[in-house]
Amino acid sequence: MQRRRLILYRGLEGDLRHGWPRYLNAALMVLIAANVIAVVIGSIAAVQRDWGDWLVAFELVSVAVFTVEYLVRLWVAVEAKAYSGRWGRLRYALTPMALIDLVAIAPFYLGLWLELDTRFLRVLRLLRVFKLTRYSASMDLLLTVLRQEAAAIGSAMFVMLIIIVLAASGIHLIEGRVQPDAMGSIPKAMWWAAVTLTTVGYGDVVPVTVPGRLFGLLITVAGVGMVALPAGILASGFSQELNKRREAYRRRVKRALEDGTVSRRERAVLERKRRELGVSEEEASAILDAESAGPRSCPHCGKPLTASEPAPPR
Amino acid sequence: MQRRRLILYRGLEGDLRHGWPRYLNAALMVLIAANVIAVVIGSIAAVQRDWGDWLVAFELVSVAVFTVEYLVRLWVAVEAKAYSGRWGRLRYALTPMALIDLVAIAPFYLGLWLELDTRFLRVLRLLRVFKLTRYSASMDLLLTVLRQEAAAIGSAMFVMLIIIVLAASGIHLIEGRVQPDAMGSIPKAMWWAAVTLTTVGYGDVVPVTVPGRLFGLLITVAGVGMVALPAGILASGFSQELNKRREAYRRRVKRALEDGTVSRRERAVLERKRRELGVSEEEASAILDAESAGPRSCPHCGKPLTASEPAPPR
Amino acid sequence: MQRRRLILYRGLEGDLRHGWPRYLNAALMVLIAANVIAVVIGSIAAVQRDWGDWLVAFELVSVAVFTVEYLVRLWVAVEAKAYSGRWGRLRYALTPMALIDLVAIAPFYLGLWLELDTRFLRVLRLLRVFKLTRYSASMDLLLTVLRQEAAAIGSAMFVMLIIIVLAASGIHLIEGRVQPDAMGSIPKAMWWAAVTLTTVGYGDVVPVTVPGRLFGLLITVAGVGMVALPAGILASGFSQELNKRREAYRRRVKRALEDGTVSRRERAVLERKRRELGVSEEEASAILDAESAGPRSCPHCGKPLTASEPAPPR
Amino acid sequence: MQRRRLILYRGLEGDLRHGWPRYLNAALMVLIAANVIAVVIGSIAAVQRDWGDWLVAFELVSVAVFTVEYLVRLWVAVEAKAYSGRWGRLRYALTPMALIDLVAIAPFYLGLWLELDTRFLRVLRLLRVFKLTRYSASMDLLLTVLRQEAAAIGSAMFVMLIIIVLAASGIHLIEGRVQPDAMGSIPKAMWWAAVTLTTVGYGDVVPVTVPGRLFGLLITVAGVGMVALPAGILASGFSQELNKRREAYRRRVKRALEDGTVSRRERAVLERKRRELGVSEEEASAILDAESAGPRSCPHCGKPLTASEPAPPR
Repeated sequence: MQRRRLILYRGLEGDLRHGWPRYLNAALMVLIAANVIAVVIGSIAAVQRDWGDWLVAFELVSVAVFTVEYLVRLWVAVEAKAYSGRWGRLRYALTPMALIDLVAIAPFYLGLWLELDTRFLRVLRLLRVFKLTRYSASMDLLLTVLRQEAAAIGSAMFVMLIIIVLAASGIHLIEGRVQPDAMGSIPKAMWWAAVTLTTVGYGDVVPVTVPGRLFGLLITVAGVGMVALPAGILASGFSQELNKRREAYRRRVKRALEDGTVSRRERAVLERKRRELGVSEEEASAILDAESAGPRSCPHCGKPLTASEPAPPR
Repeated sequence: MQRRRLILYRGLEGDLRHGWPRYLNAALMVLIAANVIAVVIGSIAAVQRDWGDWLVAFELVSVAVFTVEYLVRLWVAVEAKAYSGRWGRLRYALTPMALIDLVAIAPFYLGLWLELDTRFLRVLRLLRVFKLTRYSASMDLLLTVLRQEAAAIGSAMFVMLIIIVLAASGIHLIEGRVQPDAMGSIPKAMWWAAVTLTTVGYGDVVPVTVPGRLFGLLITVAGVGMVALPAGILASGFSQELNKRREAYRRRVKRALEDGTVSRRERAVLERKRRELGVSEEEASAILDAESAGPRSCPHCGKPLTASEPAPPR
Repeated sequence: MQRRRLILYRGLEGDLRHGWPRYLNAALMVLIAANVIAVVIGSIAAVQRDWGDWLVAFELVSVAVFTVEYLVRLWVAVEAKAYSGRWGRLRYALTPMALIDLVAIAPFYLGLWLELDTRFLRVLRLLRVFKLTRYSASMDLLLTVLRQEAAAIGSAMFVMLIIIVLAASGIHLIEGRVQPDAMGSIPKAMWWAAVTLTTVGYGDVVPVTVPGRLFGLLITVAGVGMVALPAGILASGFSQELNKRREAYRRRVKRALEDGTVSRRERAVLERKRRELGVSEEEASAILDAESAGPRSCPHCGKPLTASEPAPPR
Repeated sequence: MQRRRLILYRGLEGDLRHGWPRYLNAALMVLIAANVIAVVIGSIAAVQRDWGDWLVAFELVSVAVFTVEYLVRLWVAVEAKAYSGRWGRLRYALTPMALIDLVAIAPFYLGLWLELDTRFLRVLRLLRVFKLTRYSASMDLLLTVLRQEAAAIGSAMFVMLIIIVLAASGIHLIEGRVQPDAMGSIPKAMWWAAVTLTTVGYGDVVPVTVPGRLFGLLITVAGVGMVALPAGILASGFSQELNKRREAYRRRVKRALEDGTVSRRERAVLERKRRELGVSEEEASAILDAESAGPRSCPHCGKPLTASEPAPPR
């Protein structure tokens, strides 16, 4: 039993690129994608009418598979050091990934107990798409940056909301009496303000008077600055994160070079670290070059310039 | 009296995260938010009709609270070193934060003396939202960057205005006679030019002739470059500011490491500085690692390279 | 024969800036551009009617020229070290540039054998425009960055697709019964979601109910963040790539400076490298200044710090 | 005469912030702005009718002033070292600033000799706005970055044009028969493609069939990437340029610190350089701190670590 748990743990959470875990995880990914497609096309009335029974059957199978997956993950979680010991499974159950797995199946069981709107329940299944984040390595950088810049982007969105309210108030004052349907109150005018400041510009509501258009001109130009804020924050965030990762790799290279050469074992460790940090091979070799280029030891007295042992007294 | 002033000062301007100041400031924030909501929904005719009296009452209470707040802040300002001494309170009253507090209540008192448009006065209350900036720590970076890049963004906006005028002139020459209502003069054509160059694109005015569309194609593509300018400026601004803050932290770490180790007291000072500069814990430890890694002492004579005492003559 | 092959090789793949290769390659570029223009204007019915025969003749000439060009390139490819030896021509034929050359002529020959839609075949000729990338030096940086950031941009596009599906589901739930034509199913609602989240905003479909507009407001603001993601990724990508190139140049300068001076031959090599890496002259001289400024020799023993020969034992 | 020329030269090209040159240049700036406003409002038929004579008079005065300005600048140009000697004035006349001054007055004189469209001539006067760039210090960074990134942005625009043509061909194939007016030929369909790929999205032309909308969805998402390209290029450009300027300043600081202290004269030189490079005071002091922090001389043997003279043999 213990051994089986370990094998399952490795198959679900370990190296997913070789052997049977690879096929298991690929199958789960296909099932998730099929679920999303089923919900999307299931919302078409004609499909629902002609294929409704098949969709229900597919839903039952999917929930069964995801429920088993969730329970197995919960069972094997204690194999990880982080979740061993008391309350380990509970702590695992509260991690974002486990909560996503729960959200993927919970609506189905809630729907059995409570009287809920079927259409709403069906759409909730779409949240299963987030299960895919587990498998996407290249999305890690994206999510890291979004998490780190969350506060700054939140501030930008807050500033945007304030400016939307102020723009809506302005146009309401100017055109409130000319277009009572569209600008008759600040909440109504917020639709125009939001559509304009985000540069979406549907054109269903536009200022029609000369002062209204002058104000609108100001707001469209301000919108450009508004839209630039999150772009600026994210651009800086990506640069910072990539630099941080490159520096982390550089520190590893430095440490490996302390004795003057990179041994075979050190090379393997560096390679693993490189993949983990997402540093490209090209950059990695540039870093290695740059670090090796500098004087590691005084070329005349032969002593390392970066000695870890204290220098002998003269 | 003196002591009470000091206590109030600490409650309003000091550490707002513990004890009664926390609840006081939270209450003020809620009141500000409620004011904004009151103005927004108060602009709906039906709400004004049914709840008008309540809104007036709420306004009276709010102004009373904000007036008391303003006077108290003015009274306790001299507790701060920067505003002690002669003219201290006046100097405080001219700071941006104090002016915002004044603007939040001034319209009400002006409305008592002068005959002003009630709708306009009501919207002016929205400016109270800026009182919130006092409480937002995460907005500090945003405002710092916007302040530093103000000149560059101003230039970009000026360039944009020039290009709007040139684009408006071009389309006025080409389609002025075809669409006299929309393009009959340069000021009229500026509406189309601004809506296009900012990529808002309402579609209420579009070129209809073949040369007009060719010119429009050119302008839409130019608009993409136009919109990119502020994004580029802000992206660079955020990077620069974050780098500057990180470098400031690095200098602190360097100074703390001069004697070879980071003492407990130094650690506390660094932690305070880290929070103040908004450097993430992850980055802070990376900086500490990088600084500790370098040679702290001359590899030949074994003495520390960064001594604070002057070198003895040889 | 061998010599002629070498001359042709140099004329097609070597230095294209002097002598007859310059005119040959300029002629090929003009022909490609003329092909694109011919396809574009050939799609106008009136042009097709009046000039159809000329366009067919031009197409025959173009295909003949491109076929000869393709065969000659294949023949001379083995002159390059990379494609000499066995299977050299096959390996060359599988490079992106050779495949583009094949795609430029293949549709014509396929059209002779198979019954294909003429309109579709004609548009396929547009792919010849990619033959131009061979000649564009300034596009190299662009393509390098796009290639390096492909994974990150792919992730961003995937996130965008997920958010489009979620936004479409939301608006379908809210307005599906009000606007059955536009929001009656998730696939239908995806049109609105995509047009809004990309901030295109045609305005042919807009939410009309109050909850729909509230949801729409949320989505427009989210769209701004969505659009910012690729901008951020690319901005960071360009910075990284330019830094990498500058560092590569700096390493070259460092190596050239190892003996203390930059000889005439080293200067020529650096200049070639500088052009290859696209480092501006201004930056190059700044790098040279910075590198020359640092201590090139140990200030105590007077010997160069970066010696290539191993240090003698003490 | 010689002296008068020198005085005028200093007044027009030297330090414009003190004495009479300040008022002269301010007057010229006001005149330029007034010219732009005159052209813009002069395009309104009613204004032209009622104020036409005044506008003509103002134009005559303006041209007279600008002509005198141009001739005086040409006369004093030889005071600058760069334009002294033979052909000096001609070389000055070919600088961008001098050409702009010429373009500002040339249309008027051409209009006297040739029969030209008055409306077109009038709009040409708008080009006088470029004379303002002479006075704008904060626009220098913007123009430097735009000049440096011109090649990259050009490539991005070229890529955009290719993608517009390909998108137009695609939608022409799909909807050419459904919407012959809007998509009947590739040139016609380019209007939709450009409006969509630049995320302007007027909505005057939209795909209406299901395959058309699927293709449109793809194009709107691609448009987001398209728009991100110039933003990324410019963001990177601004960062690079600011870094370069900061590094140039750092090199100056380093040189000033070579002898261990910054003398009063060195401080003045640094301050001038700082303004010229547009480095903020805050950053400048951070750079000074960072450079002073490092060991300038070995604290034990007292010799400078960065010696300019060769070290004595041991």
